[in-house]
Amino acid sequence: MGGDIPPPVDELAAVSLTNDEASSSTVQKARFSDRVRIQSILGRPDGGAGLAGQKVRISGWVKTGREQGKGAFAFLEVNDGSCPANLQVMVDASVSDLSKLIATGTCVTVDGYLKLPPEGKGTKQKIELSVVEVIDLGTVDPGTYPIPKTKLTLERLREFLHLRARTNSISAIARIRHALAIATHTFFDEEGFLYVQTPIITTSDCEGAGEMFQVTTLISTTEKLERELIENPPPTEADVEAARVVVKERGEAVAELKAAKASKEAILASVAELNDAKANFAATEARSRLKPGLPKVDGKIDYSQDFFGRQAFLTVSGQLQVETYACGLSDVYTFGPTFRAENSHTSRHLAEFWMVEPELAFADLEDDMNCAEAYVKYMCKWLLEKRYDDMELMAKNFDKGCIDRLKLVASTPFGRLTYTEAIKILEEAVAKGKNFDNAVEWGIDLASEHERYLTEVVFQKPLIVYNYPKGIKAFYMRLNDDGKTVAAMDVLVPKVGELIGGSQREERIDVIMERLEEIGLPVEPYEWYLDLRRYGTAKHSGFGLGFERMVLFATGMDNIRDVIPFPRYPGRADL
Amino acid sequence: MGGDIPPPVDELAAVSLTNDEASSSTVQKARFSDRVRIQSILGRPDGGAGLAGQKVRISGWVKTGREQGKGAFAFLEVNDGSCPANLQVMVDASVSDLSKLIATGTCVTVDGYLKLPPEGKGTKQKIELSVVEVIDLGTVDPGTYPIPKTKLTLERLREFLHLRARTNSISAIARIRHALAIATHTFFDEEGFLYVQTPIITTSDCEGAGEMFQVTTLISTTEKLERELIENPPPTEADVEAARVVVKERGEAVAELKAAKASKEAILASVAELNDAKANFAATEARSRLKPGLPKVDGKIDYSQDFFGRQAFLTVSGQLQVETYACGLSDVYTFGPTFRAENSHTSRHLAEFWMVEPELAFADLEDDMNCAEAYVKYMCKWLLEKRYDDMELMAKNFDKGCIDRLKLVASTPFGRLTYTEAIKILEEAVAKGKNFDNAVEWGIDLASEHERYLTEVVFQKPLIVYNYPKGIKAFYMRLNDDGKTVAAMDVLVPKVGELIGGSQREERIDVIMERLEEIGLPVEPYEWYLDLRRYGTAKHSGFGLGFERMVLFATGMDNIRDVIPFPRYPGRADL
Repeated sequence: MGGDIPPPVDELAAVSLTNDEASSSTVQKARFSDRVRIQSILGRPDGGAGLAGQKVRISGWVKTGREQGKGAFAFLEVNDGSCPANLQVMVDASVSDLSKLIATGTCVTVDGYLKLPPEGKGTKQKIELSVVEVIDLGTVDPGTYPIPKTKLTLERLREFLHLRARTNSISAIARIRHALAIATHTFFDEEGFLYVQTPIITTSDCEGAGEMFQVTTLISTTEKLERELIENPPPTEADVEAARVVVKERGEAVAELKAAKASKEAILASVAELNDAKANFAATEARSRLKPGLPKVDGKIDYSQDFFGRQAFLTVSGQLQVETYACGLSDVYTFGPTFRAENSHTSRHLAEFWMVEPELAFADLEDDMNCAEAYVKYMCKWLLEKRYDDMELMAKNFDKGCIDRLKLVASTPFGRLTYTEAIKILEEAVAKGKNFDNAVEWGIDLASEHERYLTEVVFQKPLIVYNYPKGIKAFYMRLNDDGKTVAAMDVLVPKVGELIGGSQREERIDVIMERLEEIGLPVEPYEWYLDLRRYGTAKHSGFGLGFERMVLFATGMDNIRDVIPFPRYPGRADL
Repeated sequence: MGGDIPPPVDELAAVSLTNDEASSSTVQKARFSDRVRIQSILGRPDGGAGLAGQKVRISGWVKTGREQGKGAFAFLEVNDGSCPANLQVMVDASVSDLSKLIATGTCVTVDGYLKLPPEGKGTKQKIELSVVEVIDLGTVDPGTYPIPKTKLTLERLREFLHLRARTNSISAIARIRHALAIATHTFFDEEGFLYVQTPIITTSDCEGAGEMFQVTTLISTTEKLERELIENPPPTEADVEAARVVVKERGEAVAELKAAKASKEAILASVAELNDAKANFAATEARSRLKPGLPKVDGKIDYSQDFFGRQAFLTVSGQLQVETYACGLSDVYTFGPTFRAENSHTSRHLAEFWMVEPELAFADLEDDMNCAEAYVKYMCKWLLEKRYDDMELMAKNFDKGCIDRLKLVASTPFGRLTYTEAIKILEEAVAKGKNFDNAVEWGIDLASEHERYLTEVVFQKPLIVYNYPKGIKAFYMRLNDDGKTVAAMDVLVPKVGELIGGSQREERIDVIMERLEEIGLPVEPYEWYLDLRRYGTAKHSGFGLGFERMVLFATGMDNIRDVIPFPRYPGRADL
């Protein structure tokens, strides 16, 4: 990074120089620290063996520690979060007080020499660290530490959101989630899409997407006012009347002076007094109208007094807004938080979750499906390439099949069938005795059980179902020529069912106006959206991927609360 | 992208094969569309000349159009958002009705042959398109189109957030913003940092960061209740009393039957009636307590009835939360929206804006400064490499110096001086007659005028000022050995002043507890944050970069409302 501008592509290529590092016999320290990441040692193809003899400084948290040789030395398994593997660290009692080192959760920074473990110990370790000095120490009282060595359930760990990133499972999920996010940005950037940050606070409603949270400063200003009114009660009617009387008297005084042709100074002084009285009356009267409670006009809350001058909400989707950028910049995507104020206590719902929403100009439904399939495959390949170590941990601890599932999705062309074909297959299954909780007939919205039956049992691979009945889909989806279906598509994958929902958007102003009327939606709130169709309208398509669903799919976890760092759901918003 | 898993690094390298493309004589179409991006033609080093003779389909919006040769043909300047340059498109009157094509804002998809423009026309164009067929057309009525050819002011464009992405300036800013976001993720991923999505809805307050928006469902449930109480008025005291009387009577009836040793069936039936009466009484009484207005307990709003069971807000910073991940996964960053409910109407403030907040474990203040400097330099280099075309547009239309500023920051080592040194320099300037609006003395918070004087006048390069008086900084910043200053740092750059603020965090539990007490903050809300210091505490540091400030710095724009797609500020939250 000298004075000249190096091509960033070279820097990109430097991301995973694992092979070069393996052949190198020196280890790189982290760039903004004086320590070496454990990943830089254990992540080499030789497991670190080639580094034997080198002096390094490492830092991390003790996973397990034990004293041996009657307290002559201690073995620590140390993890710094850079990879799932721990580095085995050996400390002699002459170097440090071993009792302070061995508690799970202890943070250590140590200098030492890397050495090959003694042969025949039956250990998997290719390298260990023999400590010469303890540089820094963050101790732990094992009696009070909330997440000790004994394994806590995932549910119990949710009580300790601030500490659970120190566990094997949550840290592996964090690395997988990171990899999926970077894969997302890399895929769309490579494909020429622009990342557009759509608004979180919105005054639009993405029709039918669900209940919304309100964003407001009205409650706090109301509370402030109420406190103030208690400390300093508002004027009574008598106070107002008294102020009114003063005005009247002063007015009469002025009139009298004028009638008496008093001096100019005397009249001016009297008028000044009258004006003061008027100002006082106005202020008293205004204050007398102050009431506790939210401000109201005609019985409704007066949102003109709210921060944005109107009612505002947390977004449920960035789609409508990102379309405005697609209709000018062609290919765009948004990747941000979205919200639902629904009282769902299931393992699949969050009040705050992340969505990836690409929008493609000059693309029809088939282009849209091609993009969705390429994107999902890209993420699966990326994970297999970049975080195989963590995927192995997930396969070992949670879901044996998760690696095979990634491979299947990465390598198998997705099946594609129309909604009508899907219903036919489900009806045939019912005819042959298959039981569903939800009845099957043309026109229904496919339930999760139907979707998973199609992808897991019938096809055993990812599926794209398209051309859904217009009655169950949003107004902005493009009406097909049959007049009954719209150009919508859902991507279904094993394990989670629906992963993606998308559509070609209705670009014809007359058709979309008819659809709004048909559904009974008001036109006014959508005027800006309709403008995109009125002025230089373009064929365009897009889809949304629930990011946490993708993490569930990849990791094989069952509860969505475990694949987002800080889950929000009814009754809970810790930290 | 075959069945086998290709190394994503190869795919990364494929990002900018501009040179290969230049030597190639065929042009690639966009992967998920049947069109060719204009960038793929004009973005070649030869400006597209090497593609002459090829048939392509392009799509985009007409920037300007004019009929020529007495209506025999038309020239259109077409832009598709993939680059700032327009493609010149020639349409013969025999191909299409020219009058429908030439209005600014018209959307066209056309097939044609690329050809070299006639020589001696004095045009800058290296290639133009001769249309053989108009495939798709989205017309515009120039009489009603809100953003016609005549240039609108940036302020006026803010009235049309849904259309302004079609203008040269806003689309160039969008591409620059995209490049900065991708540079951010690439930099931190390369350096081994994990992207952690911190919560948007929070129940914590990042001390002193500013006024917060409240997130609630209480108002909507209250309004629902109020509507319901009007339609169906609550029981009066008399109704409640009547229900109570029924219970009493039924109770007496049961007692009588028992006393009379009535049949088991008769007694059971009577008890059943009593239970019904009790249930009715309870329901009536509960309903009689329903009142309009927000639910209250002891005169305060009853947040146990709100969605999260407590008062919730929009985050002002992800720092405290991301620290929990740093203290387990070492190097992390968050990049997300943050909020301030401040009534600021300046050109530098938004109610919703994006922040990049890295957090480095096992790093001190110097590591932190090194990271901040490397990150800012990386973004500047990335922009110069990837979006020089857009930077040229910004330099031409808005800020002549913006490219030189990027080069300066990319290539010059940042100056570093302590706050105390900075104050000395400012005091000397004052002594020599320099006038500041804000008085200079040790202990003040540096004002923007001071910061810009230091970076723009005195040093004429980026600066890092560090070791600030503890009195003006947050409780979580690490106390220096002098007992007077904390290990905080600000990065100042020409044009915007403060771009980054950061610090080494106080990792000593006793010191941070003292600081909380000194400042008079309650301990309870920070217990989880203190746990990070109680259990395996680690030296760590971090900083925050206001992303829109970086876009302002890069583009040379003056108003922050023009560098975010959907600006939110007091009184405005369009779309």
